[in-house]
Amino acid sequence: QTTSSDSLGVDIRHTSKGFQFTTPDNKFQLQIAGRLQFRYAFSADQDPLTFDDYSAPNQHVFKINRARLKVGGHAYQPWLKYYFEYELGASRLLDFRVMVEKWPWLSFKVGQWKMEYTRERSISSGKQQMLERSLINRPFTIDRQQGASIYGRIDQGGLADFNYHLAVLTGMGRGARENDDKKLMYVGKVFWNFLGDGPSISGSDLGYHDKPQASLALAGATNTSPYTRFSSSGGGELLEYQGGVPGQYDVEQWVVETALKYKAFSWQSEYHRKRINDRIGGDTGHLAGFYLQGGYIFNHGAVETGKPLLEVAARYAYYQPELSLPNNSEEEYTLAVNCFFNGHLNKLTADVTLFDFDELSMNREANDWRVRVQYDFSF
Amino acid sequence: QTTSSDSLGVDIRHTSKGFQFTTPDNKFQLQIAGRLQFRYAFSADQDPLTFDDYSAPNQHVFKINRARLKVGGHAYQPWLKYYFEYELGASRLLDFRVMVEKWPWLSFKVGQWKMEYTRERSISSGKQQMLERSLINRPFTIDRQQGASIYGRIDQGGLADFNYHLAVLTGMGRGARENDDKKLMYVGKVFWNFLGDGPSISGSDLGYHDKPQASLALAGATNTSPYTRFSSSGGGELLEYQGGVPGQYDVEQWVVETALKYKAFSWQSEYHRKRINDRIGGDTGHLAGFYLQGGYIFNHGAVETGKPLLEVAARYAYYQPELSLPNNSEEEYTLAVNCFFNGHLNKLTADVTLFDFDELSMNREANDWRVRVQYDFSF
Amino acid sequence: QTTSSDSLGVDIRHTSKGFQFTTPDNKFQLQIAGRLQFRYAFSADQDPLTFDDYSAPNQHVFKINRARLKVGGHAYQPWLKYYFEYELGASRLLDFRVMVEKWPWLSFKVGQWKMEYTRERSISSGKQQMLERSLINRPFTIDRQQGASIYGRIDQGGLADFNYHLAVLTGMGRGARENDDKKLMYVGKVFWNFLGDGPSISGSDLGYHDKPQASLALAGATNTSPYTRFSSSGGGELLEYQGGVPGQYDVEQWVVETALKYKAFSWQSEYHRKRINDRIGGDTGHLAGFYLQGGYIFNHGAVETGKPLLEVAARYAYYQPELSLPNNSEEEYTLAVNCFFNGHLNKLTADVTLFDFDELSMNREANDWRVRVQYDFSF
Repeated sequence: QTTSSDSLGVDIRHTSKGFQFTTPDNKFQLQIAGRLQFRYAFSADQDPLTFDDYSAPNQHVFKINRARLKVGGHAYQPWLKYYFEYELGASRLLDFRVMVEKWPWLSFKVGQWKMEYTRERSISSGKQQMLERSLINRPFTIDRQQGASIYGRIDQGGLADFNYHLAVLTGMGRGARENDDKKLMYVGKVFWNFLGDGPSISGSDLGYHDKPQASLALAGATNTSPYTRFSSSGGGELLEYQGGVPGQYDVEQWVVETALKYKAFSWQSEYHRKRINDRIGGDTGHLAGFYLQGGYIFNHGAVETGKPLLEVAARYAYYQPELSLPNNSEEEYTLAVNCFFNGHLNKLTADVTLFDFDELSMNREANDWRVRVQYDFSF
Repeated sequence: QTTSSDSLGVDIRHTSKGFQFTTPDNKFQLQIAGRLQFRYAFSADQDPLTFDDYSAPNQHVFKINRARLKVGGHAYQPWLKYYFEYELGASRLLDFRVMVEKWPWLSFKVGQWKMEYTRERSISSGKQQMLERSLINRPFTIDRQQGASIYGRIDQGGLADFNYHLAVLTGMGRGARENDDKKLMYVGKVFWNFLGDGPSISGSDLGYHDKPQASLALAGATNTSPYTRFSSSGGGELLEYQGGVPGQYDVEQWVVETALKYKAFSWQSEYHRKRINDRIGGDTGHLAGFYLQGGYIFNHGAVETGKPLLEVAARYAYYQPELSLPNNSEEEYTLAVNCFFNGHLNKLTADVTLFDFDELSMNREANDWRVRVQYDFSF
Repeated sequence: QTTSSDSLGVDIRHTSKGFQFTTPDNKFQLQIAGRLQFRYAFSADQDPLTFDDYSAPNQHVFKINRARLKVGGHAYQPWLKYYFEYELGASRLLDFRVMVEKWPWLSFKVGQWKMEYTRERSISSGKQQMLERSLINRPFTIDRQQGASIYGRIDQGGLADFNYHLAVLTGMGRGARENDDKKLMYVGKVFWNFLGDGPSISGSDLGYHDKPQASLALAGATNTSPYTRFSSSGGGELLEYQGGVPGQYDVEQWVVETALKYKAFSWQSEYHRKRINDRIGGDTGHLAGFYLQGGYIFNHGAVETGKPLLEVAARYAYYQPELSLPNNSEEEYTLAVNCFFNGHLNKLTADVTLFDFDELSMNREANDWRVRVQYDFSF
């Protein structure tokens, strides 16, 4: 076989991406890893969506929240990379992509993956600072899509240091086998790393950056499809929007992000706008929301003695489901504590959240507390 | 990466748990294995449940009955273990758990797994003495649940040698994402290994124990949920019980077990009781059942010459679906023959079963024969 | 463990079947590979079936068409082989089989796999010459079935060089857990390799055969089941046939095949007949179809310089859904271009197809064009 290699020199090691096998000529590499996330929640796990959700019966929830098998590496050339991720609990193929990363300023990607659109969605669920994403992730995320993109980094390390991503996608969500029509989804994002490399796409300043790493990012997306929102289940509808027919919803949306990591402190924020034009019903909806999030690791020196790192983090999120009804809003106040035994790969997280729901257009309001504990383990 | 290790010393070998990779510092270990179970049955595979099942049309059934991918090992510490098992045929995540096994007398487990409740269910379907579990497994097993447990072994090897397991679970069965209410499932089990180590959780005395290994075990469980039984599909209902609503069924149950392995002979038995209280309908059901099972390997010396081991085994099972109708019962008489090419990892099993069904409360009875052949192959 | 082996000598290499691990005694071998197939199509991906399909709205389709995890090897003996293949996108177990290949003239297989019946179906979707199988695959393929077979090769290399396959199957299709009745599917196939080894079961003459390799094959199958066709989804019905009940359809079918590979040129053809007897309705259908396919690699010397191989291939397919309505037919004219970066393991394919649909029994006809581009990547 032209693809066989000498057996003597295959390099095997355990890395943060699991066990890794590399042929001596570095033409082939395979990484195998898994991740388990166990979650306890009271009185419910999901963020409340409707007024009625605030009075639902209390539950002690415990579950395997995520169970992932991850396989990545490269083949034929060091710059021809692949990656797939399978959710074993729900039996869903999440990521499956091939990347040509030969030049830093111009890379290509084809397949299915989480579009580079919002920071909190791009950060792996195993590398979050908080226990889970915010209240505003549901209405604004583009989530995983199928298509192709070009991306890269320009003027690396200078004042004009940029990352860019441009993608053309079917806009039908994870797992779709058809497109509804000839219209596609287009997504673009630009990061301006004005202090150098830019913060990594992960929560918390575990690496303790002596020099601040910051980025300002702007992203936009447009799509015509039967859907008004996306999740790991694929396309779906927001409250107030009926199940769509092909080409029913024209969606345009944008987001502005900030991110900073500096001396054990980390910060991130997003501000979102989204317009949904119902081409059948004729209505147009306008949505807005934002979150602010920060955290600090108290004992950053502990990493040298092998002891766990401890972090306290907080988030505030605000969501307006319809701007023309300005007194309707949902808020989230969350406080989280992290205990990093081995960074994000082996950690315990607890959070407490207060949800506040105002639907003054219907003269009602509600609020509720939630407590959760989560253990995240990668191998 | 802090988790990388020197590539030179990674230890690779094939074990009974498949190919195994261990870093030189023994901080990381990965095992990959698979198992295939092919089954032929005539005139049906499933145990008959109802009177009508006894007159169902005959079939030649052949199928991939089980197709398992198993991944286990440890990470960060030799005592921080993980394991997952995925059923490829039905695309179901069966096991996914993390264990802290630092002290023999006090271990911790979190995730989803087969609760330590009955011996025949705890024994892997690949390590059974008979071709399949008995008639009474369906009504009494607790099967896989999600939650946490503590367990351990006390006074190892002495007369007061005990194994214990205590678990708190949601009681919603395999794959559940929610709990129905605030009430949980509690399970406890104690093994008294009065002759030393106790027999392993597997069928047949393949190891040929010169000294007898025996255990007497007692287990109990209590749960409030919509379900009256559990299987690999998750929660479900026994015959005569309607699909439940949250918190409908209060179930209390217990089992007494015996097990022995001695000089190629093996024995096991279980006696079960179960009470189901319908909190909506107000009725209370009482179920009982038991099985007795024994087997003997005729040519235990053959293992030294590399020849297959041959075993004959038999089982009798008796089930009363409702004690207040004492003339209703189901019986199973099964004779099985095993040919162990490589222990449980590569074996051929055949069985013949006579089922006897008495439903004298409705003045009817029936019986039927079944023949099956099974090949079980692990790699 | 009797199955453990010395770690020092485990042989690791990357082969065309992925990373491969072999114990020093060659008793255990494990291969892990994956394959991704990304497809773009306009104005639809599936072959049109009905008259209405020809006027369906145009779509830009892009999707992960196939995402396969493949694990194979042997255990306990070099001749005791196993293989499984899982479709990650649809969460389906495709292949799972164990083979005893001790003697070339007499091998045994048990499990689920693509029955050796037609060449184009037997060729892996990753080793096709064209972008996808022909129009006549749908009505005539037997696809994957569960059962057992014997097979082998007689007079290897001589004029009387034959391959044979005989199989007994449940005839219920991929993933079935029951048989509908006592009746089984029987399949037989004979290859006559009159020029020596016979062409491999893969598209295109990538190996550049200086001496021609050819085979003539004949296969037949008979089945009684609720189904009139099979696919990766399992059993189903052809147009004009209603969902069946147990034992409704008696199907008898046969195929004659040719195949040739010679100096960068490759050829294959199939001629099919199929009779469907509806034992309930009393009707009998007669179906016929054939395809002719050829391709040529223009720069076969490029393989020495590491440059991609370029091939042009064409196919014509003709299908008559009912011989008693001789003016009803479907035709496919396809032209494909292949760019083999690393043989079938890393290739880009584009095709253009003209479909012609005649249903003169209903006085209507239609035709349509389709363009597709596909990237196939194995690791």
